[in-house]
Amino acid sequence: MKVAIIMGSDSDWPIVKPAADMLKEFGIEPVVEVASAHRTPGRVKEFVESADDKGISLFIAAAGAAAHLGGVIASYTTKPVIGIPINASPMNGLDALLATVQMPSGIPVATMAINGAKNAAIFAAQILAVGDTELAEKMKAYRQKLADEVAVKSARVAAQV
Amino acid sequence: MKVAIIMGSDSDWPIVKPAADMLKEFGIEPVVEVASAHRTPGRVKEFVESADDKGISLFIAAAGAAAHLGGVIASYTTKPVIGIPINASPMNGLDALLATVQMPSGIPVATMAINGAKNAAIFAAQILAVGDTELAEKMKAYRQKLADEVAVKSARVAAQV
Amino acid sequence: MKVAIIMGSDSDWPIVKPAADMLKEFGIEPVVEVASAHRTPGRVKEFVESADDKGISLFIAAAGAAAHLGGVIASYTTKPVIGIPINASPMNGLDALLATVQMPSGIPVATMAINGAKNAAIFAAQILAVGDTELAEKMKAYRQKLADEVAVKSARVAAQV
Amino acid sequence: MKVAIIMGSDSDWPIVKPAADMLKEFGIEPVVEVASAHRTPGRVKEFVESADDKGISLFIAAAGAAAHLGGVIASYTTKPVIGIPINASPMNGLDALLATVQMPSGIPVATMAINGAKNAAIFAAQILAVGDTELAEKMKAYRQKLADEVAVKSARVAAQV
Amino acid sequence: MKVAIIMGSDSDWPIVKPAADMLKEFGIEPVVEVASAHRTPGRVKEFVESADDKGISLFIAAAGAAAHLGGVIASYTTKPVIGIPINASPMNGLDALLATVQMPSGIPVATMAINGAKNAAIFAAQILAVGDTELAEKMKAYRQKLADEVAVKSARVAAQV
Amino acid sequence: MKVAIIMGSDSDWPIVKPAADMLKEFGIEPVVEVASAHRTPGRVKEFVESADDKGISLFIAAAGAAAHLGGVIASYTTKPVIGIPINASPMNGLDALLATVQMPSGIPVATMAINGAKNAAIFAAQILAVGDTELAEKMKAYRQKLADEVAVKSARVAAQV
Amino acid sequence: MKVAIIMGSDSDWPIVKPAADMLKEFGIEPVVEVASAHRTPGRVKEFVESADDKGISLFIAAAGAAAHLGGVIASYTTKPVIGIPINASPMNGLDALLATVQMPSGIPVATMAINGAKNAAIFAAQILAVGDTELAEKMKAYRQKLADEVAVKSARVAAQV
Amino acid sequence: MKVAIIMGSDSDWPIVKPAADMLKEFGIEPVVEVASAHRTPGRVKEFVESADDKGISLFIAAAGAAAHLGGVIASYTTKPVIGIPINASPMNGLDALLATVQMPSGIPVATMAINGAKNAAIFAAQILAVGDTELAEKMKAYRQKLADEVAVKSARVAAQV
Repeated sequence: MKVAIIMGSDSDWPIVKPAADMLKEFGIEPVVEVASAHRTPGRVKEFVESADDKGISLFIAAAGAAAHLGGVIASYTTKPVIGIPINASPMNGLDALLATVQMPSGIPVATMAINGAKNAAIFAAQILAVGDTELAEKMKAYRQKLADEVAVKSARVAAQV
Repeated sequence: MKVAIIMGSDSDWPIVKPAADMLKEFGIEPVVEVASAHRTPGRVKEFVESADDKGISLFIAAAGAAAHLGGVIASYTTKPVIGIPINASPMNGLDALLATVQMPSGIPVATMAINGAKNAAIFAAQILAVGDTELAEKMKAYRQKLADEVAVKSARVAAQV
Repeated sequence: MKVAIIMGSDSDWPIVKPAADMLKEFGIEPVVEVASAHRTPGRVKEFVESADDKGISLFIAAAGAAAHLGGVIASYTTKPVIGIPINASPMNGLDALLATVQMPSGIPVATMAINGAKNAAIFAAQILAVGDTELAEKMKAYRQKLADEVAVKSARVAAQV
Repeated sequence: MKVAIIMGSDSDWPIVKPAADMLKEFGIEPVVEVASAHRTPGRVKEFVESADDKGISLFIAAAGAAAHLGGVIASYTTKPVIGIPINASPMNGLDALLATVQMPSGIPVATMAINGAKNAAIFAAQILAVGDTELAEKMKAYRQKLADEVAVKSARVAAQV
Repeated sequence: MKVAIIMGSDSDWPIVKPAADMLKEFGIEPVVEVASAHRTPGRVKEFVESADDKGISLFIAAAGAAAHLGGVIASYTTKPVIGIPINASPMNGLDALLATVQMPSGIPVATMAINGAKNAAIFAAQILAVGDTELAEKMKAYRQKLADEVAVKSARVAAQV
Repeated sequence: MKVAIIMGSDSDWPIVKPAADMLKEFGIEPVVEVASAHRTPGRVKEFVESADDKGISLFIAAAGAAAHLGGVIASYTTKPVIGIPINASPMNGLDALLATVQMPSGIPVATMAINGAKNAAIFAAQILAVGDTELAEKMKAYRQKLADEVAVKSARVAAQV
Repeated sequence: MKVAIIMGSDSDWPIVKPAADMLKEFGIEPVVEVASAHRTPGRVKEFVESADDKGISLFIAAAGAAAHLGGVIASYTTKPVIGIPINASPMNGLDALLATVQMPSGIPVATMAINGAKNAAIFAAQILAVGDTELAEKMKAYRQKLADEVAVKSARVAAQV
Repeated sequence: MKVAIIMGSDSDWPIVKPAADMLKEFGIEPVVEVASAHRTPGRVKEFVESADDKGISLFIAAAGAAAHLGGVIASYTTKPVIGIPINASPMNGLDALLATVQMPSGIPVATMAINGAKNAAIFAAQILAVGDTELAEKMKAYRQKLADEVAVKSARVAAQV
């Protein structure tokens, strides 16, 4: 089970890294690539078209500003593409969000929150879990862990009132 | 293979219907439900928790304004949830987009374009096609059809210059 | 007289704390809880449904980004729900504001300014003061104090011209 | 039990009227007034300050564009003020929303959705129901009615799939 | 010749002070006051209505967030009111700008750029210069000074190329 | 007493005309001109520089989209310039508003609401009334008329409740 | 002299057509093509890469929503690419504007106003006129014509005052 | 070969400097000027009208807030004008972007990303390369260099996974 994580610029890596970490936590291998839709269109195309050979099931694309990367990847594949709009311009990520989510009819990019790298990995795992009972159990366990943490935090805050 | 389509209000149906039609075109059965996160929280919870029994693999949630439906569904399941922000207020769908996409860490909702019902169905099919070679072929054929249509349209426009 | 203050994440506590302090200043007991609409939907439901037993008259909900907490609380109760949109994403709180205020017909969430925790407490007190003459007097005294402070500040600024 | 509904312009009446109707449905008497914060500041002040004499418990203020009415009313009273931002300019109500909700510390205006007149009335009733068991029961019955309607609508939509 | 400068909060003073300085540079006496439209409506009214007695010809109002101050001042006078929207909330001043500029028909507030205190003073001087030849000459001299500075700066930058 | 009204395009005339009518109501002569900052920069410059000869005391500039007209007029004169941002593009007037109001330090344009032509005329009259007691009385009478109209409208609406 | 006009969808043609007409008015041959960056990435690439053979000097790209077309064309060529953001979604063209203009360092797309097809053609002609004296004269003549039209329109409006 | 770079304020220089550097890298001479459309309209006009004498082929205009500079330059010339919206106000550059890009029909300003100085220089070079084979080769080489850098960066990031 492999998921590709492509980012438009290596400067996005600190924001994108939690996606790679999260995937590994679920036992999924991340294949990480820097490839700009604008500076290296050939590189993006080759990478996407070699996905079958590499055993990649789906794509996570992270890009800021005029974030075309998700859409360009989606133009080369019918596998699922998940987009992470990166806050990388004075527009606070609104440019990246609209450029990622407002895809035309026929070519969807499933968009996460601005800088939502972790959720991209979780959603990728949820997709793979549709046909994988073991992974589905891991997803439920992770959700339970999140809930348990809230209870601890609530007690800690209540103690400060 | 079944996909649930839940909408917050029956007034969303004209915008949501293309999702149901598209799913059927791909041989996927849509299970359509009106259930408001705010007016009928119990109804949403019951529907989501009965998904396994009904053979539902994933959810499409359509809602406008303070569009909480996708997030509320996602709180009850670890199956994939796809959100369609509906343009149903004076804010041109910006409220529904932000309320759907800006989910907190841990609970993703994969967001489509404003009013992007057709793409929600296509993305749902792409998810199911990860483990279904036949459906994957259908997705490629559909993509090819879209490309062929462009060629025809281009010729038609070029003739008007 | 008790007012519940629920926040979606313990990281909101520094912004929310002035609400608890303000309530205490008016002699109202705050019941503080961390409960995420998305990570712990059951926890939110239980807390809200036990409000009568706990003597809670109304709810203050603080959440950022896709701020669904106020709406989810309101879906479980007909007691007043006051929402505080928290500035907790690159969108400067616009996402939380729209997700809190743009509630559908039937289920209102009374929305305060972005990060407006203190005003949430004041408004909660104003609600309770409708049927409580003593508290109503406290509200008037507090208002007078605010006005008196302005006079002092004005003199201080005028001295600098 | 009386609730004042003040609007900045008689042109807002078609949007505001559902608030008056809703109040009457709950057995609350609406006291309707047109009074502009800018054209008739004296009229607003007099109306607000005579509220006790008229038996008015709280205020609903509806205004568009630079919607100062809610804030101006709140400056004259410590009773609850509910604001309805009206979509009455090319800015789609964003101006009225921000002008109503972004109140400074000390003087809250509880803001409803853009054009959310009905919810303003429901929230007013929820406030009065804090100290009125009978009204509280009416609020629950109304909520149940809303839920029942959803079930009917869902069946109607499902029949069209 | 006197111009009143009223600000909603003493925290605005560092941004507003250049207006007072600029007025003095043109030989106009600033009358500086802190008076909140919401916390001290009476104070605002009294100050505005005493303008004739104080020899005040026009008003500059500075306020942030739901910036009602300019509109409230304008409701009490037919003298010119100039508004300075202050950037004092997470919304980057957009809230203050819209709340100041979007005044209804009949009651204008002449709005400056966000935080544009200096320009408010210059515009006030331009108004007074309509009937004051000496002041009009000062305005022209000031403009010439601005132009001269640009020439110096341009040479300095060109030297760095 | 003359006030120039310059608009960037004759298509703005239906929105701008109330400014001319209002000026005439106050006994001020409007000098109306179509002159584009971009298509006819020389025409704008000549018109502004001939203002003294024509007896023009101040300028009203109306323009949409990248509304530079107010700023360009202000660059040629130190007389007051009032800007009316026109809603003339898909951006709902936000482009014109920001392009008009966000003037740099030194060169103010006093900005009215989007499409606020009437208020531009009223503000022009308020400026002229600073040195004209008779006009100042007219302004007060106009304000009183506005207030009287509200009372009539309020009675009419109250009768419909 | 040829200029390519590529649009993402044939539904953009009514807005794009003035660009083709304008080019012809300047004696430049438009080569019009419908080619979607997302549905037909191969078609876009081939078209751009065959530009030299076809004698195309530069590109005009028109697209709405997540308008990636300009950026994708620019990724395949170092010839100038001019982008027209089309208003084709509920977001009023803001999505298309940001997706077109916010290009990363290295790969510019020269962006026109929303729906600014005519200006795209004029700017293309201005580019070609850099090395073409005859075309440069045509541009000046066209500009003069625009100025002359303003004079006529101004007289017409002034007659209505 | 010369390209003019005009900025509205010397405070923009740190953001604009990369444009000058980039031009020099391509062997194009930058002519750098500080000239404010508002403070020094005469200076702008003279500079633009002397372009032919100075051998300037096109203009780059950088300005923030109500960024009129590009439009004003374009009003004096039919040579290409490239606009750089500068992020120089609390509005995050949205004001400068809209004021630069939303030009009326007839007078285009080719707009770059907010703060996109480098791209302005690259686009200027692309324009000059239309008639200059040697420069065209330089542009291709620069593009190749950008692509090569991505490959290096990708390897570096992949090593961190």
